[in-house]
Amino acid sequence: MLSSDMTALAETPPNDDAASLLASLGRAARDAAAELALAPSEQKNRALREAARALRAQQEAILAANARDLDEARELAPAMRDRLMLDVARIEAMARGLVTIAGLPDPVGTVLAEWTRPNGLHIQRVRVPLGVIGIIYEARPNVTADAGALCLKAGNAVILRGGSDSFHSSRAIAACLAEGLIAAGLPAASIQLVPTTDRAAVGAMLASPEWIDVIVPRGGRSLIERVQRESRVPVFAHLEGICHVYVHEGAELEKARAIAMNAKLRRVSVCGAMETLLVDRAVAGTHLAPILDDLLQAGCAVRGDATVVATDARATEASEQDWSSEYLDAILSVRVVDGLEEAIRHVNQYGSHHTDAIITEDEAAAAMFLARVDSGIVLVNASTQFADGGEFGMGAEIGISTGKLHARGPVGAEQLTSYKYLVRGTGQVRP
Amino acid sequence: MLSSDMTALAETPPNDDAASLLASLGRAARDAAAELALAPSEQKNRALREAARALRAQQEAILAANARDLDEARELAPAMRDRLMLDVARIEAMARGLVTIAGLPDPVGTVLAEWTRPNGLHIQRVRVPLGVIGIIYEARPNVTADAGALCLKAGNAVILRGGSDSFHSSRAIAACLAEGLIAAGLPAASIQLVPTTDRAAVGAMLASPEWIDVIVPRGGRSLIERVQRESRVPVFAHLEGICHVYVHEGAELEKARAIAMNAKLRRVSVCGAMETLLVDRAVAGTHLAPILDDLLQAGCAVRGDATVVATDARATEASEQDWSSEYLDAILSVRVVDGLEEAIRHVNQYGSHHTDAIITEDEAAAAMFLARVDSGIVLVNASTQFADGGEFGMGAEIGISTGKLHARGPVGAEQLTSYKYLVRGTGQVRP
Repeated sequence: MLSSDMTALAETPPNDDAASLLASLGRAARDAAAELALAPSEQKNRALREAARALRAQQEAILAANARDLDEARELAPAMRDRLMLDVARIEAMARGLVTIAGLPDPVGTVLAEWTRPNGLHIQRVRVPLGVIGIIYEARPNVTADAGALCLKAGNAVILRGGSDSFHSSRAIAACLAEGLIAAGLPAASIQLVPTTDRAAVGAMLASPEWIDVIVPRGGRSLIERVQRESRVPVFAHLEGICHVYVHEGAELEKARAIAMNAKLRRVSVCGAMETLLVDRAVAGTHLAPILDDLLQAGCAVRGDATVVATDARATEASEQDWSSEYLDAILSVRVVDGLEEAIRHVNQYGSHHTDAIITEDEAAAAMFLARVDSGIVLVNASTQFADGGEFGMGAEIGISTGKLHARGPVGAEQLTSYKYLVRGTGQVRP
Repeated sequence: MLSSDMTALAETPPNDDAASLLASLGRAARDAAAELALAPSEQKNRALREAARALRAQQEAILAANARDLDEARELAPAMRDRLMLDVARIEAMARGLVTIAGLPDPVGTVLAEWTRPNGLHIQRVRVPLGVIGIIYEARPNVTADAGALCLKAGNAVILRGGSDSFHSSRAIAACLAEGLIAAGLPAASIQLVPTTDRAAVGAMLASPEWIDVIVPRGGRSLIERVQRESRVPVFAHLEGICHVYVHEGAELEKARAIAMNAKLRRVSVCGAMETLLVDRAVAGTHLAPILDDLLQAGCAVRGDATVVATDARATEASEQDWSSEYLDAILSVRVVDGLEEAIRHVNQYGSHHTDAIITEDEAAAAMFLARVDSGIVLVNASTQFADGGEFGMGAEIGISTGKLHARGPVGAEQLTSYKYLVRGTGQVRP
């Protein structure tokens, strides 16, 4: 799933050249961030709309750059080539994405709380941009536009480091973003693409908390694992999405069937796809067989415990390893559990604290599951595939975080901000 | 200012014993945190009030433990001995602190936002505890009670690692907290003191993101610098408070005089103390001399630029180093600046993004200073010494953060929480 190029990237230690390149990008980004922090919403939105126009106008140049990337990357696996490939529809989708982000509310300047102290001091907690975001991604060149735009929306400067496979495509897209910035009178350095495929640049980004406030890795597991392990800059990410659906004894069978099918098979490669199904022993006799049959009929492999294998002979026996596996494929592990508490224990022990669902009509059971499952997103009677900023109504997201600090769940424009306290007095001194 | 013991602590790498000790504390803390996350407010508050009662009841034992610490730490500097020393009044202050924290609102469970999607999914963003907090502190034994209580209030388990100078005192205080927890039916492991003075324990804490979600260092600059540099666990801290007061050309002289005196001299050793005074050239002729005279009369040393030295012969010449010095003493650097923009540039360049103030009656100038100064707390016409969670009405704080991620400014109970999304549906699947 992962470009071998990017796997190796983070392993390469930063060298002096990479550090000095990053310092020059970093300084320009800090200067740009200081301007962006004060830019009115309309100016940022204009930059986004102008960038969308440039993407459409430069379609031929982008396709030519992409053809060059595809030509240089002949040995890539077909799935990776597909991620790398651009066509007119994908460029139009990028452009529309920018216009959508332009239409979102601007989080910067929002007063999160305000109050007046007995001594008359008036205190406001106000959203401000985070500063400089670093994005490290792989083959998909559209991340250049999507991530660049979302960072800009929240008033942040961004340093983008794409995979070397998509270098020319990303450069052509970045040029359009720069055109938009300049047309709107914003610094072109608001969105910078690392202008080299030198692998040491990633190491330099991870080692630079003075230039980058937060890093968002976008790619396969090995990339994220390395970034999380090596980065001295805080990281917003999820390593994996081991999502569960638990069919409680109070579940309606038809809901459970529809949700299990959707959660597993709508798209198997997304982080919100179900990887383990838990079925309560109290309803295993009635609910397990039809759910298994739906999935198996649809081509999903099932690895289950003894009850599951006894229920449907097409299922194979699960190993301990299966309960902590993220298949990202048409494979599902299935376990029969003895009630709500065991289900919650299983989810908290084997899950990845990403997204988990209970199917039940019993409100007390739902409330307990919501309270006790320690995941960013906990659902009742809905598919885990809703784990997505767009589906949450956040308009756009840069990823989903399983960390508990700062941003948890979908990371949208709001989560790319910090806050500061503005305190207005009339001469108060502290006794 | 810093216990030599603690300076060395973080330098000592974790060894196998320390790692296995921490794993056992960590496992107990994780189990306790899972229970605490579900504990009703009243149960947590009861634990705090019972702990306060135990502190009062165990006064003799605490004083005896403290006497033993003082006896073993004969070579400590007088300032450190004072921090270590407990008396009846200080024990009573700790007990009252616990009762105050019991009376604060419980942040856990607060619905931060909620909305319904067009497909009927109801989404809530709800505050939950962070998990396990690690506190690394120096001589002051009262941190054991204050920090332990604030973490508990927000539903977090806490692992406390005090200085070895205050080991016996901290242990006696921790015993009272455990008494409170047990009386309220909460796990005693909710608040654990590292039961050894082995220096490797600090290194083990910094290396354990699997057991500790965030570390709060409480102590001198060297400790915090090391924790920030070495920790693989996120850190809430400020390295220094280089706070500015800028006397704008629209400043009322009497306000400026009162605020300058208070910001510098109310207490010189706190992080919110002013370290640099900026005076606008437009009012230097009228405002500079009286402000300098107040400060010099009160025993403050002044290090200034050429204009300052020319204005008052008692001032000495400042070096470049002075503009980035945190004196924490009766010393002040003073510079005359050419207007608002230069003042803002100075603050952002030399400051520590902690707390900065403008004195002015000009609302446009105030607005520009508030918007452009990149600090956690920015004030108009008030003393920088208000930089304190108590003064903000937050009831209690565990410290002040100059980081932009998660918590900025005073870190109170609210800032010691995370959130999760609760999503309720009626069978929705994603198209």
